[in-house]
Amino acid sequence: MRIDIITCLPQLLESPFSHSIVKRAVDRAKIAIHIHNLREYAVNKYGQVDDCLYGGGAGMLLMIEPIVRCINALKAKVDYQEFIYMAPDGEPLTQKVANELSLQENLVILCGHYKGVDERVREHFITREISIGDYVLSGGELAAAVLVDTIVRLLPGVLSDATSALTDSFQENLLAPPAYTRPANFQDMSVPDVLRSGNASAIQQWRYEKALERTKKRRPTLYHDQHGTESG
Amino acid sequence: MRIDIITCLPQLLESPFSHSIVKRAVDRAKIAIHIHNLREYAVNKYGQVDDCLYGGGAGMLLMIEPIVRCINALKAKVDYQEFIYMAPDGEPLTQKVANELSLQENLVILCGHYKGVDERVREHFITREISIGDYVLSGGELAAAVLVDTIVRLLPGVLSDATSALTDSFQENLLAPPAYTRPANFQDMSVPDVLRSGNASAIQQWRYEKALERTKKRRPTLYHDQHGTESG
Repeated sequence: MRIDIITCLPQLLESPFSHSIVKRAVDRAKIAIHIHNLREYAVNKYGQVDDCLYGGGAGMLLMIEPIVRCINALKAKVDYQEFIYMAPDGEPLTQKVANELSLQENLVILCGHYKGVDERVREHFITREISIGDYVLSGGELAAAVLVDTIVRLLPGVLSDATSALTDSFQENLLAPPAYTRPANFQDMSVPDVLRSGNASAIQQWRYEKALERTKKRRPTLYHDQHGTESG
Repeated sequence: MRIDIITCLPQLLESPFSHSIVKRAVDRAKIAIHIHNLREYAVNKYGQVDDCLYGGGAGMLLMIEPIVRCINALKAKVDYQEFIYMAPDGEPLTQKVANELSLQENLVILCGHYKGVDERVREHFITREISIGDYVLSGGELAAAVLVDTIVRLLPGVLSDATSALTDSFQENLLAPPAYTRPANFQDMSVPDVLRSGNASAIQQWRYEKALERTKKRRPTLYHDQHGTESG
């Protein structure tokens, strides 16, 4: 898999991509990540990539020209399945979207900054807009890092134990059950007996019940997707 | 404001906190961010901070002891309003949550990794669990970076233009309207005439209508929160 990221702040992405899961995926050649500095596609020698809003108002907007130049340069070399724009008003990122994108070959991710990008970019050059949540970030860079992390850990051969991702929250529309590790007792707080019983089927049953209970309480919508509404 | 972050992967947070808005906020002394390496509070000389799950299963879990040691060391020096754990099954982060947290003085953010943390930490030491979205990340570090970014840009004196944050998506339960910048024409794609008309009230009206339209289409729940249901 290959992911190209277009940003005016490439420095911001250094550490998230050089540690942990993403680094491991790169080292194992499961993914190639290319970061493109939008300023290299600027319209003038001052490296200008943003300008004021038509109609007035606070904040700056990324201009269409540098972005289109960069996209065209990328398209000339690689066939991309999606040109993604990280936008607060995009389609909400879910585990399903991450699963789906992890099956693609080549993706472009465009990071907005300041007030975002000129609307014409979104209308004519972007194929998919994704939001990591209903809140405002200072730029799309952290959102892109989040999206890449969700995708990369699903690629075969990235997690040491392939079954680990399968027991994560959301993979079956269920949150994960509570988990405990050593010591069994710590300041009078103990691990539930069942988890130390060695009774595999009792453990499985306990975990399933706790996962259901937690999902019902914390993500009722997920619960109903999985189990139907009370009337249905 | 002061934010203390507890993590077993401090390197991951380097670049997000040394650029852009967060750097500016630190430089202007609007915020102090302290990153604590969980390994320094490890239970043995090997720096162990994680262990297998009771009851079996793939993945590792952060242990209770190093976390409690670290939290106690912090508590001895500072009064914190919240001990936040970044968890996929936590309360969803929204702009309202970010606004609320930006009014606090001192916060601790604990990042999970691998399969998360021992449940006893969540039950007894955490006051608030926050999720940045319904998807799984390889750790809480990026989630913490996202949370810090949403908070920091709301602190007075951080954004150059204080009115900028007020016109962002979600601040009034509305998505932002489309925005355009120079050039007015690019490859036969033009900026809507109204935005170049100089008619301030027509521009304001157009933006409000577009914001409503976009919210209705892309975030119907937000729209109904703002405008009532069709029957109500």
